[in-house]
Amino acid sequence: MAHQEMLRLRTSRRGMMEITPQVMEIVKRSQIKTGLAHIFVRHTSCSLLVTENADPDVLRDLETLACRWAPDGDPAYAHDLEGDDDMAAHGRSVLTDTSVTIPFGDGRLLLGSWQGIFLWEHRTQGHSREVIVTLMG
Amino acid sequence: MAHQEMLRLRTSRRGMMEITPQVMEIVKRSQIKTGLAHIFVRHTSCSLLVTENADPDVLRDLETLACRWAPDGDPAYAHDLEGDDDMAAHGRSVLTDTSVTIPFGDGRLLLGSWQGIFLWEHRTQGHSREVIVTLMG
Amino acid sequence: MAHQEMLRLRTSRRGMMEITPQVMEIVKRSQIKTGLAHIFVRHTSCSLLVTENADPDVLRDLETLACRWAPDGDPAYAHDLEGDDDMAAHGRSVLTDTSVTIPFGDGRLLLGSWQGIFLWEHRTQGHSREVIVTLMG
Repeated sequence: MAHQEMLRLRTSRRGMMEITPQVMEIVKRSQIKTGLAHIFVRHTSCSLLVTENADPDVLRDLETLACRWAPDGDPAYAHDLEGDDDMAAHGRSVLTDTSVTIPFGDGRLLLGSWQGIFLWEHRTQGHSREVIVTLMG
Repeated sequence: MAHQEMLRLRTSRRGMMEITPQVMEIVKRSQIKTGLAHIFVRHTSCSLLVTENADPDVLRDLETLACRWAPDGDPAYAHDLEGDDDMAAHGRSVLTDTSVTIPFGDGRLLLGSWQGIFLWEHRTQGHSREVIVTLMG
Repeated sequence: MAHQEMLRLRTSRRGMMEITPQVMEIVKRSQIKTGLAHIFVRHTSCSLLVTENADPDVLRDLETLACRWAPDGDPAYAHDLEGDDDMAAHGRSVLTDTSVTIPFGDGRLLLGSWQGIFLWEHRTQGHSREVIVTLMG
């Protein structure tokens, strides 16, 4: 059995936005008890990840690391049509994930105590983002 | 319902090869309407990714970044049996993905306008690559 | 059809532990013939990956690379509650995967000849780790 919904989200700037509650809500609404929740962004300059949702310093430090992994405005980039953060955003997207898949059982996401699902906006300005959630059970 | 097929691909050298059309074709042939398309490489020196398929400069710049993330012939590597690109290829594979999963609905892949599915050959020479596509719906 | 089990593992220190045999056993026990095996860690300081299981030097070299990707005790980190390896572990987790998905057919995992599934402990000391395996077929 497959259940599919689209979430439309608005990011405000570069950084992470937790979307765990929205995914939980979809699992509940589907009435599927056991299976997998697949979450997918239809973009190449933002991404999804599962990381710690307790200490906001973790999110800040991940931002610090990402700025090293794919620096903004690197002189080696050929692709800079939309500014210094354009190619950096694609690089950061490739290093993280276009989709994440979370198991659920007894109608509940089986995340660990400290895990949250995040949309990571990699562009410096906010954008409208489409996320497709597909549950299989 | 599960539908499974193997694609046999021949890469010509290090770089990305778009495989979106082949995956679309399998979704069509399966006659499954809604679900997930999972694509998996049976290798540890090439990988899969979803990234921009409009400007070829993006692919070139990702190559530039990957050469920094896991440099060829790094003196710190112990594993160099097959040459300078051997361990670099494993490192690049670990940073990207052995598999990608794409949702489909109404019999069509739900990729965004600028997204394509790519096989990334990380060895400097071309290889024969096996890719398993599994559709669940 | 969904089949779900939890594995409880004990890591001994930073490094990789192969879990392919445990996953194979679950596929066998499920009696599902064709589908996807999804493996998920309920933690943000260890991760999963598929990489070469023949030469242990590959695992050692991946450790070397990971220490560059997210260095221990970096002065830029704000999050260091649990020591020098705390934020590094989150960074390494984000660069690799909280879950991996492997296709199976005819009751067997369709891994390539050199592929193994590994749990990567990113903390310097060992921990108890919960892994959820969900089979869909």
